[in-house]
Amino acid sequence: MDLHTPGLNRLLDSWLDEDLGRGDLTNIALQEITGSAYWVSREKGIFCGGNLVKRIFQRLDPSVQVNLLVKDGEYFDAEQQLLKIKGPAATLAAGERTALNLIMRLSGIATATNALVQELKGTGVHLADTRKTTPGLRILEKYAFRCGGGINHRFGLDDAAMLKENHIAWAGGIKTAFQAIRATAPWPSKIIIEVEDSDQAEEATRIGADGILLDAFPPEVLHNLVPKLRKLASIRTNQIVLEASGIDPINLKAYAKSGIDLISTSAPITRSSWIDLSMLFEKT
Amino acid sequence: MDLHTPGLNRLLDSWLDEDLGRGDLTNIALQEITGSAYWVSREKGIFCGGNLVKRIFQRLDPSVQVNLLVKDGEYFDAEQQLLKIKGPAATLAAGERTALNLIMRLSGIATATNALVQELKGTGVHLADTRKTTPGLRILEKYAFRCGGGINHRFGLDDAAMLKENHIAWAGGIKTAFQAIRATAPWPSKIIIEVEDSDQAEEATRIGADGILLDAFPPEVLHNLVPKLRKLASIRTNQIVLEASGIDPINLKAYAKSGIDLISTSAPITRSSWIDLSMLFEKT
Amino acid sequence: MDLHTPGLNRLLDSWLDEDLGRGDLTNIALQEITGSAYWVSREKGIFCGGNLVKRIFQRLDPSVQVNLLVKDGEYFDAEQQLLKIKGPAATLAAGERTALNLIMRLSGIATATNALVQELKGTGVHLADTRKTTPGLRILEKYAFRCGGGINHRFGLDDAAMLKENHIAWAGGIKTAFQAIRATAPWPSKIIIEVEDSDQAEEATRIGADGILLDAFPPEVLHNLVPKLRKLASIRTNQIVLEASGIDPINLKAYAKSGIDLISTSAPITRSSWIDLSMLFEKT
Amino acid sequence: MDLHTPGLNRLLDSWLDEDLGRGDLTNIALQEITGSAYWVSREKGIFCGGNLVKRIFQRLDPSVQVNLLVKDGEYFDAEQQLLKIKGPAATLAAGERTALNLIMRLSGIATATNALVQELKGTGVHLADTRKTTPGLRILEKYAFRCGGGINHRFGLDDAAMLKENHIAWAGGIKTAFQAIRATAPWPSKIIIEVEDSDQAEEATRIGADGILLDAFPPEVLHNLVPKLRKLASIRTNQIVLEASGIDPINLKAYAKSGIDLISTSAPITRSSWIDLSMLFEKT
Amino acid sequence: MDLHTPGLNRLLDSWLDEDLGRGDLTNIALQEITGSAYWVSREKGIFCGGNLVKRIFQRLDPSVQVNLLVKDGEYFDAEQQLLKIKGPAATLAAGERTALNLIMRLSGIATATNALVQELKGTGVHLADTRKTTPGLRILEKYAFRCGGGINHRFGLDDAAMLKENHIAWAGGIKTAFQAIRATAPWPSKIIIEVEDSDQAEEATRIGADGILLDAFPPEVLHNLVPKLRKLASIRTNQIVLEASGIDPINLKAYAKSGIDLISTSAPITRSSWIDLSMLFEKT
Amino acid sequence: MDLHTPGLNRLLDSWLDEDLGRGDLTNIALQEITGSAYWVSREKGIFCGGNLVKRIFQRLDPSVQVNLLVKDGEYFDAEQQLLKIKGPAATLAAGERTALNLIMRLSGIATATNALVQELKGTGVHLADTRKTTPGLRILEKYAFRCGGGINHRFGLDDAAMLKENHIAWAGGIKTAFQAIRATAPWPSKIIIEVEDSDQAEEATRIGADGILLDAFPPEVLHNLVPKLRKLASIRTNQIVLEASGIDPINLKAYAKSGIDLISTSAPITRSSWIDLSMLFEKT
Repeated sequence: MDLHTPGLNRLLDSWLDEDLGRGDLTNIALQEITGSAYWVSREKGIFCGGNLVKRIFQRLDPSVQVNLLVKDGEYFDAEQQLLKIKGPAATLAAGERTALNLIMRLSGIATATNALVQELKGTGVHLADTRKTTPGLRILEKYAFRCGGGINHRFGLDDAAMLKENHIAWAGGIKTAFQAIRATAPWPSKIIIEVEDSDQAEEATRIGADGILLDAFPPEVLHNLVPKLRKLASIRTNQIVLEASGIDPINLKAYAKSGIDLISTSAPITRSSWIDLSMLFEKT
Repeated sequence: MDLHTPGLNRLLDSWLDEDLGRGDLTNIALQEITGSAYWVSREKGIFCGGNLVKRIFQRLDPSVQVNLLVKDGEYFDAEQQLLKIKGPAATLAAGERTALNLIMRLSGIATATNALVQELKGTGVHLADTRKTTPGLRILEKYAFRCGGGINHRFGLDDAAMLKENHIAWAGGIKTAFQAIRATAPWPSKIIIEVEDSDQAEEATRIGADGILLDAFPPEVLHNLVPKLRKLASIRTNQIVLEASGIDPINLKAYAKSGIDLISTSAPITRSSWIDLSMLFEKT
Repeated sequence: MDLHTPGLNRLLDSWLDEDLGRGDLTNIALQEITGSAYWVSREKGIFCGGNLVKRIFQRLDPSVQVNLLVKDGEYFDAEQQLLKIKGPAATLAAGERTALNLIMRLSGIATATNALVQELKGTGVHLADTRKTTPGLRILEKYAFRCGGGINHRFGLDDAAMLKENHIAWAGGIKTAFQAIRATAPWPSKIIIEVEDSDQAEEATRIGADGILLDAFPPEVLHNLVPKLRKLASIRTNQIVLEASGIDPINLKAYAKSGIDLISTSAPITRSSWIDLSMLFEKT
Repeated sequence: MDLHTPGLNRLLDSWLDEDLGRGDLTNIALQEITGSAYWVSREKGIFCGGNLVKRIFQRLDPSVQVNLLVKDGEYFDAEQQLLKIKGPAATLAAGERTALNLIMRLSGIATATNALVQELKGTGVHLADTRKTTPGLRILEKYAFRCGGGINHRFGLDDAAMLKENHIAWAGGIKTAFQAIRATAPWPSKIIIEVEDSDQAEEATRIGADGILLDAFPPEVLHNLVPKLRKLASIRTNQIVLEASGIDPINLKAYAKSGIDLISTSAPITRSSWIDLSMLFEKT
Repeated sequence: MDLHTPGLNRLLDSWLDEDLGRGDLTNIALQEITGSAYWVSREKGIFCGGNLVKRIFQRLDPSVQVNLLVKDGEYFDAEQQLLKIKGPAATLAAGERTALNLIMRLSGIATATNALVQELKGTGVHLADTRKTTPGLRILEKYAFRCGGGINHRFGLDDAAMLKENHIAWAGGIKTAFQAIRATAPWPSKIIIEVEDSDQAEEATRIGADGILLDAFPPEVLHNLVPKLRKLASIRTNQIVLEASGIDPINLKAYAKSGIDLISTSAPITRSSWIDLSMLFEKT
Repeated sequence: MDLHTPGLNRLLDSWLDEDLGRGDLTNIALQEITGSAYWVSREKGIFCGGNLVKRIFQRLDPSVQVNLLVKDGEYFDAEQQLLKIKGPAATLAAGERTALNLIMRLSGIATATNALVQELKGTGVHLADTRKTTPGLRILEKYAFRCGGGINHRFGLDDAAMLKENHIAWAGGIKTAFQAIRATAPWPSKIIIEVEDSDQAEEATRIGADGILLDAFPPEVLHNLVPKLRKLASIRTNQIVLEASGIDPINLKAYAKSGIDLISTSAPITRSSWIDLSMLFEKT
């Protein structure tokens, strides 16, 4: 993750302000005290967000030191220490909840993603995320998905185009919509078409889509359709990406064998639990 | 929920910008077209966020009309229509994902909260939320908790003070910390003390805490402790609020019988799934 | 005062920008020069805002050093030095007016508050502020009120509810309004009711208000009413706070004897003068 | 006052957010109710800010109607109605305090300014403000000063340059500083020099200053100095503006006779009280 | 161009504030006057930005009417009227310069782009822009490039990756850098490699780059290299895009015959003049 | 240029965010690498913006070191090194384009300004800029104009008033408009009147304008008119500034002899090319 963007600092500040409001009322009880603490997990999982913890506390006070004991993407056990932190006690108290909430959420996503990625191991099929992300957290939740071993799909409506059912209905057909976009989109932007049946899939391939999102196709249908689409695509020598979505995670392996390139799923983001972490004071 | 704050508009704008980035690439295919659509749920649940849907689309274009078919806090069935929407097709496409993501998340929380609230029905014990909320969404997630039948705890570090384990350790004891805060906090601000054992609970009550957070006490311990604390509190004629936290939702009913006022839990926010909603075009 | 909130930095920046506009035209004459200066007061008073001076200059240039000679809440004499400052002369010139304006205003409030607080000494009655504060300065003006020895009332419409004459008229009565708010407000939020006569005061107490704002009651009326309200409140075992407002500061002592808990007044904020401070260069 | 700037809207929004915080807790009691109210003054004065009242309430809800009964700069009597307002009761409650606080402050300044301006009537000498204004309110407080009959001095460090004692000390003399600024400032920007004695005043005039700020000169000294300075200035054919500052308002008339052009004073801003206004509901 | 993004409104507001500062001083002379005006060009060109003119004036006052007489991308003659505008005279004066500056700049780019695009007519080679754009105006300048008949390259460092000379030097070779990016970039993101000689071009093609930027290659070298690269790419069945850059616009036609897909150039943005437009009042 | 304003930091941040978007995709390939680079110019010119380069990179990472080899306003040759930079390679890559784009633009303006200023050398006539500047870059483009040897005109609609053709038409004449503005503008603000013919010029002078903008007058007409206007102005003893605009740069010298004070032109801003600069890695 690129931590350079000034926009990230503004986002973290807005989250700190959300919790601090007009100021921490307990601040007065912690004046001039230096505190040490560590973070511990109550359950096992995959860690995500270490550098964000540093950044959050240092936005409040640059003197806070954070020592990461686990790297992003690494496995941790229940009761394992994840990081140590030292600084003004009032700062530790002020940033604690915001930092914990973020990392609990992100590590929850990394952990849930990893569980599915493990199932796909050795199949050559990638697990990709979607745009179903919590408002305001897209960059970070997608980073967590990557920490779990998945790959990212587009980040927004601007960095790739996807024609979905509504677009096709409103624009009056796949072809019209596709051509209008192809003529105006930046040349490196891919155009993906979401299809509901095999006929649409073939039409989309013939038109020259860069990717086909095969929504809610049974694995056995894909098994026959995929080679057909690849052959159609090869006529235009384009490198089509075939993606299955709308699947039940239980069928992951069946889909993995169907010849597709990607399985996209929002489950690790919309159906995962936060990892239960605590920040505990440490005697010094 | 008070929708007046200008801050809410800025928040919604930032979420729209997150998805739109440098602009929706499909926009060009939808010029001058008016679209109609409806929202449908794939599963049953409790609805939350209708007026936010209106606001989101109208931030993009004030001419969009949203007709709510279900009110916030109401039950809906699987496959039920939740709202109808009409406006420029390019606007519907631009706001769709942001609006859906938000309402899927909030309705998921309302639904999960309601499941627990149903269990407490008739006990007189309230279910309260915590500060474990997604960064940036606190006001809205707490509103969803209320739509599910729960009540809200404090919104931030500034509208009530809570002395937790770390505060007590760093400040050198409950009493010192409590008195420093009492002397400087606004008079309407309550001070709550989180305690780990019965002795601490009694000390906190004697000092004059407005609320005691009894963390991870077994129900049978509470059964004896609660009357003792109420008696202690009555000497000072203060109206103490006794709250149990750190409990497994499975034991809800046992806790409800222990005499406490509140059970606080983050589970409907940290362990719930999003409700699966879709926006489908409508022929006009 | 909790100086952690990122929002405070944004506020200070906006004030610096207000004075600097497109840049200080005298900046060119002060290039590469280091300056020393001290602040002196032209009149006696109570100081407020030392750490804000540091923060303001350091937002412009972190190398500026500020040495505080008087603490917040301390008395200073006419012609006394309050602080010393050293740094790039262009920075001292750029931040001077913004910093002085703020501290002159805040010290004026602290001084005016303290004059009233002195009168209440030994009575056990507290002086509280109101929401009549300069737009944009609420947190800081309320901090100044505290530096003068007063206590703070609620900070905004969200951290306690107050039913005033208009609410009661529009909502159709005290009871309806009170119950609607009690059902939705966070549990730690107090509800205060402003009343115009004794009957309203009794109704408000019976309903269970956490505080009663007795507006413009003569002290002799309060003398009889206060014990009656306390007795009513004790039936519900709630700890009612009785507050007198709308009083002429001349009558402070008479009110202090009436048995109330608080006197709230906006006078130190709406009717005080700024303390006259200057920043003078120092030969080095 | 030019109400066009988008910056003004952002400022008003920030003030509304300051009072609303996470939302007005009484909002729930005022749903779907339309309210009417009027503003009345408890004392006489000069009105300032009518269009700001409109703008504030309409930022919350464009349907609010405000009917101004007194114009900016007009006199009003005690108990006079100033404006009528109608709209959703929840909006009236949400914006009331912010709007009142602002107008009470601004009308206080206009009233205090006017008292001094009346004393100068017929003398041809203008009363000008200074940069001693409340952080964040400069444009509005200076507008209030104008509503009271005064004229405005520069708005910031960028729209005219003023060399003050500190600048001269740090830059190593009036001449060096003046020439560096004259060479880089935009040609329409005036350069004003603050002087402490007659020698400095003459030097500043000879150098070609556009204005001389004569700080704390006794009126009788000015009586002799002013014609001398005008004569010196006429050699260069520049139109010098002579301004007295640091004066006790009691001596206004003596100063007015000394031949100066302007008297600048911060008193109406730093030493005025807010006008006491109320917003009262109206039966409909 | 997608005008939906809230970010665009913030950008336009910031530009209006830049010119308005603390408010238009001439505003007072235009109170309550309605004005009509038209825009006329002093030279011929290609128009760009009509809807932005509407948006700019309507940010100041929604009642302003703008009637566009020329569409974006259309040719206009010297002395031709481009649009008519009607509204409060003070608003027309307040927004005039900001709107004109923007459209003069954008139409200058569209016109300069179009001159080059005309030369490529019939060759099948596209003219693409670069990231050399004025800070703050990227989306709009790239839109202008499109209005002139060009196509857009990537919009930022995030929507496609380009390995340039510095990256390759620092990362220690093309291959290492390419693989690290391929493993973490979203799957729809293309990776382009900028090369300095034929060997690098072949290496980049073999590695699987989606595009090769051939910087400063003479046309005759490209003539031989292009088929070789296409052949190499076809082995991997990827659809490589070959782009020439760093060329003198004089040689456009020679490059167009070399078999490449795109010529990218910053000249219409970095070396074009603004179109000279005026806004003239109209008698009504 | 005064680099103190917090607003400048926000502007630079917004420009970095424009290029970085959701983060530099090549960032991953440059982790933990320190890079060194230098800037070189492909053509000769006048440098502008050295301290902005420092600031831009240090907003991303304060550890970046920038060593300026040429000062603002100095001449540089083709192929000359302008500055050296060292820091984390990922930061150098992240800030490169934004920094280069800005300095290429500003140095282009400084260079073009200087060419005209050289022609005026020895004439005593100054070259001034206008408000035709790129939206968002006014302060910086005007600084570049100054680096090229020109002087600045007003920065916005608020720091001097200019009555132009539209104002005069809408307000119903020069006199009405002038008097309304004179009565409300801050006293240090100059009022300039743009005139189309000699009669208007005389009227504007008689009224007391501080400056007259003589738009598109032939030099021979000015030759006679200028002494006449100066004589008229001397009656009021005001120091009038006579400015010629709307001139073809070819006639600069003829205008310089006409007796005017200033020639104002937008050409160095609206008709200049960017200087071609590159940032090249350096072996360490």
